[in-house]
Amino acid sequence: MTLQPTPRALTGIQPSGSAHIGNWLGAIQPALQYQEQMDTFYFIATYHALTTTKSAVDLRQNTLDIAMTWLALGLDPAKTTLWSQQSVPEVCELSWILSCMSTKAMLDKAHAFKDAVAKGKKAISAGLYTYPVLMAADILAFDTTVVPVGKDQVQHVEMARDMAKTFNHTFGETLVLPESIVQEAVASVPGLDGNKMSKSYGNTIEIFLPKKKLRKRIMAIQTDSKTMEEPKDPENCLVFDYYKLFANKEEQSELAAKYRAGNFGYGHAKQAVFEKMNALLEEPRAKYEDWKSRPDDVQDILNEGAKRARSVAQATLARVRSNCGL
Amino acid sequence: MTLQPTPRALTGIQPSGSAHIGNWLGAIQPALQYQEQMDTFYFIATYHALTTTKSAVDLRQNTLDIAMTWLALGLDPAKTTLWSQQSVPEVCELSWILSCMSTKAMLDKAHAFKDAVAKGKKAISAGLYTYPVLMAADILAFDTTVVPVGKDQVQHVEMARDMAKTFNHTFGETLVLPESIVQEAVASVPGLDGNKMSKSYGNTIEIFLPKKKLRKRIMAIQTDSKTMEEPKDPENCLVFDYYKLFANKEEQSELAAKYRAGNFGYGHAKQAVFEKMNALLEEPRAKYEDWKSRPDDVQDILNEGAKRARSVAQATLARVRSNCGL
Repeated sequence: MTLQPTPRALTGIQPSGSAHIGNWLGAIQPALQYQEQMDTFYFIATYHALTTTKSAVDLRQNTLDIAMTWLALGLDPAKTTLWSQQSVPEVCELSWILSCMSTKAMLDKAHAFKDAVAKGKKAISAGLYTYPVLMAADILAFDTTVVPVGKDQVQHVEMARDMAKTFNHTFGETLVLPESIVQEAVASVPGLDGNKMSKSYGNTIEIFLPKKKLRKRIMAIQTDSKTMEEPKDPENCLVFDYYKLFANKEEQSELAAKYRAGNFGYGHAKQAVFEKMNALLEEPRAKYEDWKSRPDDVQDILNEGAKRARSVAQATLARVRSNCGL
Repeated sequence: MTLQPTPRALTGIQPSGSAHIGNWLGAIQPALQYQEQMDTFYFIATYHALTTTKSAVDLRQNTLDIAMTWLALGLDPAKTTLWSQQSVPEVCELSWILSCMSTKAMLDKAHAFKDAVAKGKKAISAGLYTYPVLMAADILAFDTTVVPVGKDQVQHVEMARDMAKTFNHTFGETLVLPESIVQEAVASVPGLDGNKMSKSYGNTIEIFLPKKKLRKRIMAIQTDSKTMEEPKDPENCLVFDYYKLFANKEEQSELAAKYRAGNFGYGHAKQAVFEKMNALLEEPRAKYEDWKSRPDDVQDILNEGAKRARSVAQATLARVRSNCGL
């Protein structure tokens, strides 16, 4: 049998509470581009979340919230199949089967595990250690052909390929071999203090802050202590870095000129950033509030996506089981 | 909520091809005693078999064969729920969830993994490494209260208890804590060469050999080179060891007296062993041949058992999912 897969991109979405500007520009926006180009399968990684979440209420809340976030930012359920991972438990079964196709030595080389060891993390869970196998199952269960990833995640796709090859070699052609698409140009968004924007640093700007709170947050971007009158260097200014994320080249040149001319304070620059961001976020914010007012509709979208995704996974598992003798 | 579990014993059965006398006396017979005493849940461990099996045909064949073996030796489907593990894929889902409740340090201490390392086994699979987690899922999915085990397997039940405790502690009372029943007096059956009876040593006596082949195999038990006339020592004779497995005290004394008297050859002793064994095995052998002639009936029994077992597992998983937020 020769597998002739549809071009299909898979993305896993962490249900990790209110998303911030870094998530939007670094992950959500790039992922949403693919829905115009191919069959897109996006899932909210609830099983993976169990390696860290210890609250059922949070997990449920965050799952619904991240679905609303992606919907508000442009995910189109007519183009993208969106579901919550636990609606397709077949991935867990495939994960066990793939674990028999993987060596422990491979898991020892996984970045996330090595990082945890390097950071001296105590009590590394078996879930954290084996999550590359579940991730491979996520990829392979849906006949995924491409996985858009950051450079640091190419390894996961390689591992999934290796497991698929081992299975196919042992039991005959069964699983589609995925490729990674490395997203080189993804925006890296600084936090308010100049470090990487991250919830753990408390330096985030949440996407759906009400207008006033958004402005307040932007006003908290760290700057040096130059007076309003002094000329300023746009190349060395966090506020300007933010502006670059949202303004076109011409607008950037204009603002840079004002920086260099002096008599233009950081407060003015921040106001410019706020206006740009707010203009872009006004519509998504309204959509998000709208989804929040009708959570059942969001659940319906997830259920509909789960139905579609599950039928693909069940077909894959039927091939897998038949070919390995289960 | 306080869980008030039914007393239920769980046993996993390896689908490892034609069973031998060591399997019968050491595992099958002791396990079958429980079906008179409590609710017995026995499964054929096909998922676990994937850590070693690389042939779909063998796995399917061995699964059916081991079911026939247990049925022939006395498993009563009216008393014992018998199913093939892959008919209840919920155990894989529970396995992932439990892996998030387990530390890697715990897996490092598992006997099977340590043995594999000690034996210098290369390419230890992730499946072998993580199989204590799947085993815990096997136990916990069915609200098992007791697990009859050999001494070397007490650790598995302990691990399952620990995972259940961690889950219950984190997400509230959900999983039944299992106890192990250590089977102290289980017969240890020597092979034809005096080593432990094991397929890998080629020293086995298969349970369902036809009468003539059974006799031939028993005639191959190793002895010393004493002539027929010489008196012999029953305490130092493999043939006598076999006799002890099947004869009562009185019969043993009678045979011991003949040994000591002389003019009684090993051939005579082997004939006595053969007659004892054959008498015990005649009925099971006929039953086994009967089951072999109607494999669909065996499959029906497995399907019926799967239905019963799966409904218990689905109820457990519903509790688990609800309590951890999936």
